[in-house]
Amino acid sequence: MKLSVKHLYQNYEQYQDKQITLFGWVRANRAQKTFGFLNVNDGTFFETIQVVYEESLSNFKTLQKINVGASVKIKGEIVLTPNRPQPFEIKAAALEIIGESREDYPIQPKRHSREFLRKNAHLRPRTNLFTAVFKVRSILAQAIHNFFEARDFIYLHAPIITSSDAEGAGAMFQVTTLDLDAIAKKETTINFKEDFFGRKTNLTVSGQLQAEVFAQAFRDVYTFGPTFRAEKSHTMTHVSELWMIEPEMAFADLTDNMDVAEDFVKYLISDVLEKAPEEMAFLNKFVEKGLIDKLKKVVDQSFTRITHQEAVKLLKEANETFENTPDGMMDLATEHEKYLVKHFNGPVFVTDWPKDIKAFYMRVNDDNETVGAMDLLVPGSGELIGGSQREEREAVLRERMRAMNVDETDLWWYMDLRKYGSTPHSGFGLGFDRMLMYLTGVENIRDVIPFPRTPNNCEF
Amino acid sequence: MKLSVKHLYQNYEQYQDKQITLFGWVRANRAQKTFGFLNVNDGTFFETIQVVYEESLSNFKTLQKINVGASVKIKGEIVLTPNRPQPFEIKAAALEIIGESREDYPIQPKRHSREFLRKNAHLRPRTNLFTAVFKVRSILAQAIHNFFEARDFIYLHAPIITSSDAEGAGAMFQVTTLDLDAIAKKETTINFKEDFFGRKTNLTVSGQLQAEVFAQAFRDVYTFGPTFRAEKSHTMTHVSELWMIEPEMAFADLTDNMDVAEDFVKYLISDVLEKAPEEMAFLNKFVEKGLIDKLKKVVDQSFTRITHQEAVKLLKEANETFENTPDGMMDLATEHEKYLVKHFNGPVFVTDWPKDIKAFYMRVNDDNETVGAMDLLVPGSGELIGGSQREEREAVLRERMRAMNVDETDLWWYMDLRKYGSTPHSGFGLGFDRMLMYLTGVENIRDVIPFPRTPNNCEF
Repeated sequence: MKLSVKHLYQNYEQYQDKQITLFGWVRANRAQKTFGFLNVNDGTFFETIQVVYEESLSNFKTLQKINVGASVKIKGEIVLTPNRPQPFEIKAAALEIIGESREDYPIQPKRHSREFLRKNAHLRPRTNLFTAVFKVRSILAQAIHNFFEARDFIYLHAPIITSSDAEGAGAMFQVTTLDLDAIAKKETTINFKEDFFGRKTNLTVSGQLQAEVFAQAFRDVYTFGPTFRAEKSHTMTHVSELWMIEPEMAFADLTDNMDVAEDFVKYLISDVLEKAPEEMAFLNKFVEKGLIDKLKKVVDQSFTRITHQEAVKLLKEANETFENTPDGMMDLATEHEKYLVKHFNGPVFVTDWPKDIKAFYMRVNDDNETVGAMDLLVPGSGELIGGSQREEREAVLRERMRAMNVDETDLWWYMDLRKYGSTPHSGFGLGFDRMLMYLTGVENIRDVIPFPRTPNNCEF
Repeated sequence: MKLSVKHLYQNYEQYQDKQITLFGWVRANRAQKTFGFLNVNDGTFFETIQVVYEESLSNFKTLQKINVGASVKIKGEIVLTPNRPQPFEIKAAALEIIGESREDYPIQPKRHSREFLRKNAHLRPRTNLFTAVFKVRSILAQAIHNFFEARDFIYLHAPIITSSDAEGAGAMFQVTTLDLDAIAKKETTINFKEDFFGRKTNLTVSGQLQAEVFAQAFRDVYTFGPTFRAEKSHTMTHVSELWMIEPEMAFADLTDNMDVAEDFVKYLISDVLEKAPEEMAFLNKFVEKGLIDKLKKVVDQSFTRITHQEAVKLLKEANETFENTPDGMMDLATEHEKYLVKHFNGPVFVTDWPKDIKAFYMRVNDDNETVGAMDLLVPGSGELIGGSQREEREAVLRERMRAMNVDETDLWWYMDLRKYGSTPHSGFGLGFDRMLMYLTGVENIRDVIPFPRTPNNCEF
């Protein structure tokens, strides 16, 4: 197997004075008269390796002019450098340019604006910031699968194209193979029976309903896949294409649900801190001061659990002027969320929300006023997780759907789950990209997604 | 944590004569006059648990009538039964029906047609076949991530909505938020500047080009996400929505590519055989006789590697009449593929294909006639993997694109990868659902996907 910078950093002592071959990209070239230094990164490790090249190399004059971004093949000797910040360097015996770069290479070793880097999304993974962010993104995805595998959850792929628009989670993208230009040309009406699926179809906003199907067979399941929102939002936290994790558990009530959600968040944080120490140290230093402390504190504490009613009472009694008056029948505003996490000095589950502001599938409590919903609020990010116990009683569900104008016809299969072996069951949703913002301290969701999709932006 | 059937099967001896509480669904109910047996499955394990209930239970008469599919809560004692096929059973002290089922429950303990079960895709995960298939699906997904994590590959989410249609991999679904009904009503022309992204957009057919971006930063990367095909195919192997795995490696040629692909396939098979012994035994017995032997043989042998030219020569010299005459300038037909895997008695990589039948991004060989492509053919499934070394030379790539009418304008960022630190790089694609068919022996792709999407079918 090819040698990697990661492997060298983890085992450099055993390579002392040995000849190695390494491939990578030049991050910086400092050429002197009779020698020069390259900083080389091969993508496997956050840190670069210093390569010393000397006049004696036959292509020395060419090497002096290597542009940043070039790819190189290095043959050389590992030299330990215990007195320098880097524990070792490579003394090049041969240095071959594989693919030159150019002087107009956009990613120079200097500070670039985030906006500039977004326009160069194809090159930004080569910067320190995005090397760190996308490495953490990869680790986080794996951590999610590992968490659920260890607990015997079954992973399912919920469908992306769907004919259902019942979730009511927001505006949807339509999917079609109809010839739109032809339709526009003449006066007509659209016959969706002629469309690819013989009906109107959309991109999914959530895999929850399908996850419920699987939970009623496998008990504990989860989805992890892309979902879509067609709102024309231009905020720092909204994108049109986002990945979500949606666990669903049979024979589980709202308390079980919160227990899993709390363990989940703590596991993800711990795993990332453990597996990406260099990246997290960089983010802690350059992106969000105090990031690591913030995260460690979350792992070490129990999450507060209060009802929506208790939360509103607290807000009303608070010695604080809110722009939005706290209201027992309404959603919490961002300022309320901020107050609560500050008040409890940590993450807070708010449970049992007024039913009129929540989705049709949430379980109606005995008071017939609230539903078994829970939102997890965290310091610095507001709502991270939303979940609920699901309404498992066929008659109650039907009544709720009627009251909320949700058409039962398309959801016959969802109703069937209540007819045949229904169970108390629960689940929640975590926005993968928002969790990554929380973990990295990056404030704009466009900067944690490889190729973000937003209104008027579908480049790359 | 809740007790699971899986845990009990793995640790029943330590539960001997102990009281336990268990939740699950009734798969069968055999009621006698003074006692009865339930077969209960909780989704965590392929096998059911036998529960004995006796006349002494206060709700005995109700229990006698429990319908298949009902959910139950069992309190009882674990009794070891060393002389029976099942090593233990539960003697119920209390048996509570949580959610009744009905006599019209579609999934009765008998053989149902696959077609019938497709129409009941919301209930079929409760059958033995689909319990096995979807469990293996989950294990396979995890195995994919584990394989790449162990090799330090970075996982990236390629975008789903894309403005590029340059890959030429097939017909695409269009994504829009335009009001189609309004457009149809009057004679007009469509202005895609008014569409959500300000341009025409589609669902992706491949994440490869974006994976190349990441490989040029992280060296070894992979995607694993949904891709889409809008062909109106009605075969056993085509669906409109499929998950693909696409690794991409910098500083890697076609041989490196095949090495990884071979290791990958072997790892996936071994991992599934190890982690799903009950499911694979069931599939081996009831779905494809000899399945396990077929798979083990693949793990134990080296994959043959021959060029397309050699393959055609072999076919021409074969003592066999083909419907399609083997041709050095053309694709292999299914009958040719079958002959080759039979001839070599195992998997075969066919490499170096005529350039005119392959994609623009594949690296042109020195003969200027062939490209560095590879297809992996396996016994029983034909082409499982397709890959190539990518054209890293800017001028050659540009010439190929011109020759194949691929517009460079939208792919400016892809060209940039060749301008700044280009590297020899390679990758391949594995269809997740087809791999699952191969591993389970299931012959229709609709039966390995939770909620398959095909022409005129977007139910659930």
